[in-house]
Amino acid sequence: MKQNEFYTDDIKTIREILDTAEVGYMGVLTPDGYPRVVPVNFVRVGEIIYLHGANEGEKYESLKASDKVTFLVSVPLSVIPSYWISVKSAGGATQFFKSVQMNGRAFFVEALTEKAAVLQKLMDKYQPEGGFKEITHNDKMYTNLLKNTAVIGIRAEKVTVKVKVGQQYPEERRRALIEKLEDRDRGVDRATAEEVRKTLLQGR
Amino acid sequence: MKQNEFYTDDIKTIREILDTAEVGYMGVLTPDGYPRVVPVNFVRVGEIIYLHGANEGEKYESLKASDKVTFLVSVPLSVIPSYWISVKSAGGATQFFKSVQMNGRAFFVEALTEKAAVLQKLMDKYQPEGGFKEITHNDKMYTNLLKNTAVIGIRAEKVTVKVKVGQQYPEERRRALIEKLEDRDRGVDRATAEEVRKTLLQGR
Repeated sequence: MKQNEFYTDDIKTIREILDTAEVGYMGVLTPDGYPRVVPVNFVRVGEIIYLHGANEGEKYESLKASDKVTFLVSVPLSVIPSYWISVKSAGGATQFFKSVQMNGRAFFVEALTEKAAVLQKLMDKYQPEGGFKEITHNDKMYTNLLKNTAVIGIRAEKVTVKVKVGQQYPEERRRALIEKLEDRDRGVDRATAEEVRKTLLQGR
Repeated sequence: MKQNEFYTDDIKTIREILDTAEVGYMGVLTPDGYPRVVPVNFVRVGEIIYLHGANEGEKYESLKASDKVTFLVSVPLSVIPSYWISVKSAGGATQFFKSVQMNGRAFFVEALTEKAAVLQKLMDKYQPEGGFKEITHNDKMYTNLLKNTAVIGIRAEKVTVKVKVGQQYPEERRRALIEKLEDRDRGVDRATAEEVRKTLLQGR
């Protein structure tokens, strides 16, 4: 364990990171031996990550040939300039982040009823306002969609959560950091300040 | 080639995507056979992608054992609700994106002068305002940093660029889409509208 990263197995943190992310990154081994990174929309249902894709092409062929996959959701937080840490050395420059990384096995969902249910869950996540006819396996409008879409599940064997938000700094430095982030107030600075504040409350 | 994605080898598009991204995703093969996804800060220098990391741990061990890597930068654009495409079917729901994906070989930069130069380039990208003493190999302040940091280069063997911004739709539908995005004006909607507009100008 590196000194400046915080590992947790807190299930609440894991779910929060997974459920608020729009894009996850699946690692698959291609038939020609490359560890390929595939950006995907996904939904967590219980302990399973579900995604969909074409039922042809490299992603499909890779998963058919090798079910050993990884899945990453990384939430980039603020870039911290070195001069917030030291007046001379560049060594303190970094970017904070939160991430969940899984090693697991991928499987194809074949039953039409289950495929329809997963696609409906994906819609519930990405289009919560509705505005479409429910996806069911026996609706003729969805016959082609269900036929031409591969629905893939990932069952995790190992889950790693990393949070890097300056928790190794003394309390005083973390308070100064919160102030600097709130002053700068650019991009995700406020969200980052909140994460640093959490480490004070938790007494980490 | 899937009908709804656009592939290009336009070097300007590739560089723009790489040079404006804060985080890239490196695919590495771990010693236990998983295609792991590692989020990294990086800088492009000519045709090479450079990044840095600890000179211990799984990322380091994986690269020492296998230099076959991939590198992905994906720019998520707007989520497009199905009802912008069809009043009933959920089938049109999607998320637009732009991405660059490389297959390549990783190598370790060993020479201290070159390591210092790459770390300086990373600082130039992530902290363009300066505020630190230049990183040089013979500055005692940077001796430990240079010793404890692994600097990794990726030489691409294959580069794939994908742009998915509704370019398969008829011109009229794309114009309606631009209007809807500008009306909604949430998150990256304006940037997405610009990308759709580009496809009209380019007559794609």
